[in-house]
Amino acid sequence: MATSRSPELRKDAIHSRWVIFSPARARRPSDFKSKSDPNPNSKNQTECAFCAGHEHECAPEIFRFPPDSTSDWKIRVIRNLYPALSRELDPPNSESVGGPVTIPGFGFHDVVIESPAHPIHLTDLSADQIADVLLAYKKRIHQLRAFDSIKYVQVFKNHGASAGASMSHSHSQIVALPIVPPTASARIQSMKEDFAQTGKCGLCQVKQDDLLIDESSHFISIVPFAATFPFEIWIVPRDHSSHFHELDNNKALDLGSLLKLMLVKMSLQLNNPPYNFMIHTAPLQIDSTELPFTHWFIQIVPQLSGVGGFELGTGCYINPVFPEDAAKVLREVLIP
Amino acid sequence: MATSRSPELRKDAIHSRWVIFSPARARRPSDFKSKSDPNPNSKNQTECAFCAGHEHECAPEIFRFPPDSTSDWKIRVIRNLYPALSRELDPPNSESVGGPVTIPGFGFHDVVIESPAHPIHLTDLSADQIADVLLAYKKRIHQLRAFDSIKYVQVFKNHGASAGASMSHSHSQIVALPIVPPTASARIQSMKEDFAQTGKCGLCQVKQDDLLIDESSHFISIVPFAATFPFEIWIVPRDHSSHFHELDNNKALDLGSLLKLMLVKMSLQLNNPPYNFMIHTAPLQIDSTELPFTHWFIQIVPQLSGVGGFELGTGCYINPVFPEDAAKVLREVLIP
Ligand SMILES: Nc1ncnc2c1ncn2[C@@H]1O[C@H](COP(=O)(O)OP(=O)(O)O[C@H]2O[C@H](CO)[C@@H](O)[C@H](O)[C@H]2O)[C@@H](O)[C@H]1O
Ligand SMILES: Nc1ncnc2c1ncn2[C@@H]1O[C@H](COP(=O)(O)OP(=O)(O)O[C@H]2O[C@H](CO)[C@@H](O)[C@H](O)[C@H]2O)[C@@H](O)[C@H]1O
Repeated sequence: MATSRSPELRKDAIHSRWVIFSPARARRPSDFKSKSDPNPNSKNQTECAFCAGHEHECAPEIFRFPPDSTSDWKIRVIRNLYPALSRELDPPNSESVGGPVTIPGFGFHDVVIESPAHPIHLTDLSADQIADVLLAYKKRIHQLRAFDSIKYVQVFKNHGASAGASMSHSHSQIVALPIVPPTASARIQSMKEDFAQTGKCGLCQVKQDDLLIDESSHFISIVPFAATFPFEIWIVPRDHSSHFHELDNNKALDLGSLLKLMLVKMSLQLNNPPYNFMIHTAPLQIDSTELPFTHWFIQIVPQLSGVGGFELGTGCYINPVFPEDAAKVLREVLIP
Repeated sequence: MATSRSPELRKDAIHSRWVIFSPARARRPSDFKSKSDPNPNSKNQTECAFCAGHEHECAPEIFRFPPDSTSDWKIRVIRNLYPALSRELDPPNSESVGGPVTIPGFGFHDVVIESPAHPIHLTDLSADQIADVLLAYKKRIHQLRAFDSIKYVQVFKNHGASAGASMSHSHSQIVALPIVPPTASARIQSMKEDFAQTGKCGLCQVKQDDLLIDESSHFISIVPFAATFPFEIWIVPRDHSSHFHELDNNKALDLGSLLKLMLVKMSLQLNNPPYNFMIHTAPLQIDSTELPFTHWFIQIVPQLSGVGGFELGTGCYINPVFPEDAAKVLREVLIP
């Protein structure tokens, strides 16, 4: 394993971001277990505002699945009661977005309740139930696209208190932004430069070999070459596709199954760690010249150690686990 | 206060980074207190490897202050026992740094022990003792500059477990990197563009007014206009200066006093929160054309709330406290 190796700096072609791989700071990868209770605030809690029967305690519903269900709903997409952005403000007009240093906080902030029952986690759902959650994201993005001043939609999940979750009931969030956020613009810039050099999309050509964890008909799961965090996982569509919201029902089912497998393996191997996942997609309004080098994917990050002043200061991360070691460990996890 | 205001996006001229100010997500700023014990792992600990008398348990010393002290040292600069980078590797030659995706992890990783006594925190030291710590950073940077392949030196402090600290004995760290890290290069790019437009250095002209907290002969302390974190503080030299290591003894004393004041105010107002501080300086080898728009400063970040998938995904932060409100609160803290 990595312990006898020298430190190495790696930069991937997707983000042009240096990561320091530092075996001296590693515990052995297979000893890498989460110590924190993923839901310390939910020890004795059995019901909350997100549970079936508590719908009136929530901010207004946007839609539910199945659409015609009553108390037997499976998924609800609702407004966030404490939204980071406001749908009531005037949308910024597109001219003003380029120059100024202040713009109104117009946007949407929704919550996706993934199950009606409090103790059910995403990994407890079947692949086709997870597919329904993915299709709920897709449906909401299609609604949000209708707003000209919405430039980007970020879908993400916080699981466990140290991954930021304030509610333990299984849920994810969708934020529609009036700007293209830094991560997305940096990724496009980097993929564009890579495309200019190689003539190929960096994610169609992504290094697999010893980084591959698993694969399905339409997706592969890997530990990225320059993973920012130990045991970080990416799920990448095999076929070139710029936007997550192009996902069809067939691929959603396939993805539901691979996403479940990755979350289950991570949970078994790393002792049910808190985690985040993020869907990285292209900005809503891209022109056709940008299509060849934009390729959506899902990033899964277990929260195993915090960050400190070095990362805050430099924007550069220290990862004690080499990606090929993490991939091997995850490849070999046995599902009981 | 901010609670009746609408959300707003702000971008500063220093980092060109959008931050979402979201009053709906705020508790009232003056209720903003840290709940976490900054040093949970040190409850019963009274001595450690960083204490006087335990020098043999540490990685080798680089220098101490006063230089000719024996057991009565005040500050020790030592090697990190688990370094992220290795001083034993061949330094990368400068040609190879531009292109490749992997470079050897050459560099230096040191620890600055700020006091010989375990229970003493940085805020317990006098202004001139803090000045000595600052001058120890300076001295070490002057040594590290001698290596051609060192491009940037990051000085930072982690205080408290949730700010990343694994050792509770008061200390800071110095990492010498073979690359210019993303935060520094993005800052230079942004300051350069701002300089091209205004003809002035963005930090010489930094907005003060309602953002000012305190000032000394040579420094001001502010909450930055687009603060990424609630109650983030910057200490900025009044006179234009690219590199922290230009600090002279006189200014070090003045800075020691203002840094102490900021840390004491933060601790009183926010209930002794875990925190990080970072010294943001220019890369070691900049050419004279870059001098006019590089200006070092110290960033202090109390750790009041974690981040989640939104920040990991977008690189965009949600700050529930407007900077002018945080500045007012910090301005008015009474020191008993
Ligand atoms: N009755 C109700 N009806 C509707 N909505 C309700 C509700 N009760 C609570 N909510 C909302 O439900 C959401 C639950 O979200 P999470 O638990 O994933 O984390 P949260 O957004 O609080 O913060 C984490 O994620 C964000 C974004 O990454 C980080 O800024 C933050 O630091 C981190 O703790 C909250 O946003 C909350 O506002
Ligand atoms: N006997 C000894 N002699 C010499 N050195 C010794 C030593 N015993 C311990 N050390 C070193 O002392 C340092 C203490 O540093 P901190 O407590 O500030 O946080 P640490 O670097 O562990 O990690 C935090 O900061 C880093 C950088 O920001 C983050 O990567 C990480 O996630 C976060 O927890 C450690 O780096 C450790 O290696």
